[in-house]
Amino acid sequence: MKINRLVILGVGLIGGSLAQALRRADMCNSIVGYGRNEANLNKAIELGVIDEYFLSAKDAVQDADVIVLATPLATNRALFQEITPVLKQDAVITDVGSAKACVIKDARASLGEHFSRFVPGHPIAGKEKSGVEAASANLFEKHVVILTPLPETSVHAIAQVTQLWEAACAEVITLKVEHHDEVLAATSHLPHLLAYALVDCLAKMQEREEIFRFAAGGFIDFTRIASSNPQMWHDICFSNRKSLLSVLDKFDNHINEIRTAIESDNSEKILQIFSSAKNARDKLIAERQQLNSADSEKQI
Amino acid sequence: MKINRLVILGVGLIGGSLAQALRRADMCNSIVGYGRNEANLNKAIELGVIDEYFLSAKDAVQDADVIVLATPLATNRALFQEITPVLKQDAVITDVGSAKACVIKDARASLGEHFSRFVPGHPIAGKEKSGVEAASANLFEKHVVILTPLPETSVHAIAQVTQLWEAACAEVITLKVEHHDEVLAATSHLPHLLAYALVDCLAKMQEREEIFRFAAGGFIDFTRIASSNPQMWHDICFSNRKSLLSVLDKFDNHINEIRTAIESDNSEKILQIFSSAKNARDKLIAERQQLNSADSEKQI
Repeated sequence: MKINRLVILGVGLIGGSLAQALRRADMCNSIVGYGRNEANLNKAIELGVIDEYFLSAKDAVQDADVIVLATPLATNRALFQEITPVLKQDAVITDVGSAKACVIKDARASLGEHFSRFVPGHPIAGKEKSGVEAASANLFEKHVVILTPLPETSVHAIAQVTQLWEAACAEVITLKVEHHDEVLAATSHLPHLLAYALVDCLAKMQEREEIFRFAAGGFIDFTRIASSNPQMWHDICFSNRKSLLSVLDKFDNHINEIRTAIESDNSEKILQIFSSAKNARDKLIAERQQLNSADSEKQI
Repeated sequence: MKINRLVILGVGLIGGSLAQALRRADMCNSIVGYGRNEANLNKAIELGVIDEYFLSAKDAVQDADVIVLATPLATNRALFQEITPVLKQDAVITDVGSAKACVIKDARASLGEHFSRFVPGHPIAGKEKSGVEAASANLFEKHVVILTPLPETSVHAIAQVTQLWEAACAEVITLKVEHHDEVLAATSHLPHLLAYALVDCLAKMQEREEIFRFAAGGFIDFTRIASSNPQMWHDICFSNRKSLLSVLDKFDNHINEIRTAIESDNSEKILQIFSSAKNARDKLIAERQQLNSADSEKQI
């Protein structure tokens, strides 16, 4: 069913890409943007990503049928509070945040009777670039979008948000909130933290110039995510603090085991850890390739 | 000056790629391989990488003018001992190991009067794949090769090895041994250790299947180096143990600072670390792009 008025709060990489994908799928009669950076919003108009924009969220969501929060996590609470008084009776609200428990807490505290039509969401897709100029209609193709609805979430709202992401060619699945936050802390938030930490640590070493001069391709790939938006990842670290610190502890213990093994000449242990890691990653890559080729076959 | 007989000990990714590059540059009259895996050596013959092979290093280096050790670091000492008695008077010996102090120690202990013609070397190039089938003649193009000669190293031998790598289109520079080992521990050995540690840590978590299912592109890039050869990286960790553990300590301290900042709500500190890392990496990438475009202009 076509959406009459879709409002994207935050027309950056994710919000902009979703708008483009939905436009390509002809899913909306009109797509409205909200943001604080007018130059970016004008760029979004120019690129055909949105039809019109507002610099006030309250103005933007008037008459909205579906509202997507694609703003930094730290701004959610204030936005929920701002829009609640003017929401239409049956408006469906969703978000794209990388941590879910905190967003749900903010939504529950602010949305009042609209809370049952809030569907927490998280597309597992991104780039190290940000802003609407980095947006693309195919960003979510073959990517997973995780929804973490609650027992009280309206099935109608869940269906609406599912349809929206499927129109963007994503695969929609649902997870429990806590499970989502733990899994993402491990596969996404911790790697970002480690990449930022390593680059900053090396940049502060005295031999900085030479250190980076001899960086090979492995280092470039390993640290790609350290070129991501610092404010966004700052917000994620604090929003998912509990799960992130818990998996950081596990990682720390593992690093300490490795250190002890190197110090005590435990050759077998190091070889076992490295081999097990290689096997796990090779398996993951093989599974992905299989998935992709299965998809290609389906398309034929 | 053309090399009459070049011997590659270990015809894998690096040894095989060097052979292919030198063949393309018509630098050698004959290229001889040595290895323990006869199937791999036959593959190398089939691919035109080498002209002939031996399963004994001693037999392989007879009459050799230049010998390149491209075997795992842990095998160097035994190889040096095996070949020393049969080396030609003026044979030049070099290696491609990722850690240099340990190779020099092995060479000094074994090569006797030939030690002055041993030129320690390290091409900063590689792939996560290994074996001669992954080799390619252009692996070293526009890549740095670091030589770490000692005061007693023959200038003639250094010139010979420099010419060899330049024929493979690499940029040759020299560094002090300790400096090489520190810098590479930071930009290469530590990232590999962290990538292996993270993948193994996650693979051991209960939710293994789901954890990897939701891994995004950032995780795939971050862990690419965890698909590298475990035996090779095992050898590197032990060979460069001192520098590696020293930079691991620095990184650990940095991680602890970050943990404390998250725990104590030090928002400013996290933002500062993430921003500084992003700036350092973006600068590194910009410098590389500039270097590459300067090269392209030169080629026109």
